[in-house]
Amino acid sequence: MNIKKQRLLTAGPTPLYPKALQAMMGADLHHRTQDFREIVLSCIAGLKSALGTTSDALILTASGTGAMEASVTNCFSPGDRVIVCSAGKFGERWLEMTKAYGLDVVALTAPYGSHVAVEELEKALAANPGVRGVFVQASESSTGAAHDVKAMGLAIKATNPDALFVIDAITGIGTMPLDIDAWGLDLVVGGSQKAFMIPPGLAFLFVSPKAWARMETAKLPRYYFDLRREQKNAVKGESSWTPATSLILGLAEVLKYIETFGPGKQGMDKLVENAQHLAAATRLAATTLGLELFAPSLPSAAVTAILAPKGMSSGVIVKEYRQKFGSIINDGQGEMKGKIFRVAHLGYFDVVDLFGIIAQLELILDANGFPVKLGTGVAAVQKYYAEKVVGSKQTVTA
Amino acid sequence: MNIKKQRLLTAGPTPLYPKALQAMMGADLHHRTQDFREIVLSCIAGLKSALGTTSDALILTASGTGAMEASVTNCFSPGDRVIVCSAGKFGERWLEMTKAYGLDVVALTAPYGSHVAVEELEKALAANPGVRGVFVQASESSTGAAHDVKAMGLAIKATNPDALFVIDAITGIGTMPLDIDAWGLDLVVGGSQKAFMIPPGLAFLFVSPKAWARMETAKLPRYYFDLRREQKNAVKGESSWTPATSLILGLAEVLKYIETFGPGKQGMDKLVENAQHLAAATRLAATTLGLELFAPSLPSAAVTAILAPKGMSSGVIVKEYRQKFGSIINDGQGEMKGKIFRVAHLGYFDVVDLFGIIAQLELILDANGFPVKLGTGVAAVQKYYAEKVVGSKQTVTA
Repeated sequence: MNIKKQRLLTAGPTPLYPKALQAMMGADLHHRTQDFREIVLSCIAGLKSALGTTSDALILTASGTGAMEASVTNCFSPGDRVIVCSAGKFGERWLEMTKAYGLDVVALTAPYGSHVAVEELEKALAANPGVRGVFVQASESSTGAAHDVKAMGLAIKATNPDALFVIDAITGIGTMPLDIDAWGLDLVVGGSQKAFMIPPGLAFLFVSPKAWARMETAKLPRYYFDLRREQKNAVKGESSWTPATSLILGLAEVLKYIETFGPGKQGMDKLVENAQHLAAATRLAATTLGLELFAPSLPSAAVTAILAPKGMSSGVIVKEYRQKFGSIINDGQGEMKGKIFRVAHLGYFDVVDLFGIIAQLELILDANGFPVKLGTGVAAVQKYYAEKVVGSKQTVTA
Repeated sequence: MNIKKQRLLTAGPTPLYPKALQAMMGADLHHRTQDFREIVLSCIAGLKSALGTTSDALILTASGTGAMEASVTNCFSPGDRVIVCSAGKFGERWLEMTKAYGLDVVALTAPYGSHVAVEELEKALAANPGVRGVFVQASESSTGAAHDVKAMGLAIKATNPDALFVIDAITGIGTMPLDIDAWGLDLVVGGSQKAFMIPPGLAFLFVSPKAWARMETAKLPRYYFDLRREQKNAVKGESSWTPATSLILGLAEVLKYIETFGPGKQGMDKLVENAQHLAAATRLAATTLGLELFAPSLPSAAVTAILAPKGMSSGVIVKEYRQKFGSIINDGQGEMKGKIFRVAHLGYFDVVDLFGIIAQLELILDANGFPVKLGTGVAAVQKYYAEKVVGSKQTVTA
């Protein structure tokens, strides 16, 4: 056994869809041509269709953080009071960013591994009736916890319909239902290197009519991320600045691939179901092996965070995945480094990937003083597969 | 003759270096790994070496316009008086952007095809002694004109050493000498899809110690493009946000390729010489054919802008390049659309490309009522090549 394949198994960048990677090789083209405009228009239509929304979809040449920033700078004014829900490293990014732009921030924080409860948000909305926006992560991938975006959206609609609801859905898209229109999700941020299965470099932003209206009066300065200018161009398949053409070619292929699961939003639902099945099976395998889940109360299907056994650093687990098998998985981030490891499910992952991930884990745990009856974790995944996937066509909603 | 190859012959995106494109296929990797950090560090070292500068080099996930914006938001405060030199569409971008961020802008404009003279800048510096910065395009690719960045830099140093000199060198890098340290170029912006021969999606920024010092007090808000945060990460091969990994893999290959022309800055000098030779030969071919150059007084070697013959739209020329031969060349932009067409030289272009470009042009002109003795333009390029390139090893400085 001398070959050790490198396998990218992280929550972003995620494994690449091969046809998209091949399409990227076609980047020897110019973006100000009708051929390319048609590709851009097909991507915009594909994004809207996949999310099943009437919001406008924009494609920005930036990391996802760039689209987060665009939400802030285009829709808010200095001193605007906003509520930021933070339960991890990406929640802290919202906090940092809104403060950097001079917003008056009401911080609702929950411990790592937990989530901000809807009731907390409702209290904060009641205590701050003039609030101009609410920021949250749909999936906090640093901890593997989700937020109940639906209940939060409906709570905002009910109490302060003028507030904009801004969702970092970078790892939420493709891992949970997101009904942008019905739940009042005004600005929804996505990124190319997540469930969209292509390399990093593109950010997506879904913009509601309410958010467009707000831009008329929002006073923060902006230029590169000027969304109104971008939208004027986007309707023609154009972009304000030179776009990342290679990645857009890849995106067009991925959106076609998602459509093969079913037309329109149905394809995205199937992708979400895929991640949810893998997440549920991973949780089952982990607990079968006697491991503890880090975010059991509202787990994200983007990534499952598992606590390293007592006395073992998660850094050792991550390192051995790499050194013994060539597999790249995520350690914890920030204060969770060394404490949790994270198994990703979003995008181009299948059940065979998971068999391999769990089999590697069993060997690594066993070699590091956490005895494992080899095969029991894999068997848990196999049984889940046989019962829930083969045996039924129901969507797993856990 | 039924095959018609598509050829990308524009000033950006420019033709792709094949090995770089192949390297991009390796994007199935994670950016928070030592392997990738070493690639990033090699790119940063390669950029500094190619430009022969002690300034720090940063790689941003954005179009070049993003790095232009980073220069503004990191180094200036609302109300700062600055001088913007504008002689085309990209100069107008500096004007728009500095105004969008509330700077107090002194606009020095020159007509399209011309450039802002050093004397004009000297007068403006004298009239505005407290000016905080000067903005210019090294090469204004919308018109094919250059600016005398060296003389401008020395003028600023002599009269107002506190002012930052900010250069959009997006099509300047690789087409003209740029001695960042000696000429006092404080912020120098580059882009991946230009002389760097890879697809769009990365911006480069060279930052001088003087620019870093200014950031201590500059007050404009920033987050995604926070350069100090980026630099803290860059020294470790890291980035603040997820970087465009695929493009960075391509960049590493291109920087190696440029090194093959000669070690360090010598390689870049040879790339500059290549563009300058192609530009000089193109000008010769155009005038030999009886065409008029649009920016004769200080032509850029990035792109040669040629006026369409009287009574002929440049749009017809551009369209026939595409329809008859599959070649994509640039029409004029903005108010110059239909009046000029532009032949690019920056990056991965060689003399055989130019033979083909001129041969196509001769046929197109002749077919549209501008009589051409076929082969005379090509012969001008051939003679230039025989005399100046084969016959001599001197750098063409025109």
